Amino acid sequence: MILEHADIRIDPAQASAFEAAISHGAASVIAQAKGFHGYKIKRSIESPGRYLLLIYWDTLQDHTVGFRQSPAFAQWRAIVGPFFVQAPLVEHLELVSQS
Amino acid sequence: MILEHADIRIDPAQASAFEAAISHGAASVIAQAKGFHGYKIKRSIESPGRYLLLIYWDTLQDHTVGFRQSPAFAQWRAIVGPFFVQAPLVEHLELVSQS
Repeated sequence: MILEHADIRIDPAQASAFEAAISHGAASVIAQAKGFHGYKIKRSIESPGRYLLLIYWDTLQDHTVGFRQSPAFAQWRAIVGPFFVQAPLVEHLELVSQS
Repeated sequence: MILEHADIRIDPAQASAFEAAISHGAASVIAQAKGFHGYKIKRSIESPGRYLLLIYWDTLQDHTVGFRQSPAFAQWRAIVGPFFVQAPLVEHLELVSQS
């Protein structure tokens, strides 16, 4: 299992509309993808307009190939893309340890 | 519940020693703090030497006041601080939505 970590910046004035849109997009589009294992959307307390989208995938390729090269990716971007003030910074992480 | 998100950079040559140290420090020091509700340590796949330390706290103040102003903070920094190649970037986030 790997974690997709997308660091997103939007106009803080659009926060309510963005939160509704990304929550809808994650639940209706991303959640249908092969290898999807859950998401969280988090709002920064210190930096208005900064959000993290955290998605668990079975494998790196489930995200980078399976999802990104599917028609669902365009649907997702149509929902959330208009809010981005810069390209999201996306990395993938693997677990070292946890409590 | 809020999430502390610490973005950490170390020398990739020190990865094994750092992973052992931070796992030990989180489990032995941070896990004893008031308001602590669990941690995860994650290694970036794309950026060697980049780690995220994710800690759930009851309240923002449990981290920023209760933990940081306690003697435990110095113990924690003594364990992990020597590995940092720059100051960790720390923000706190709250949940918008999840699956």
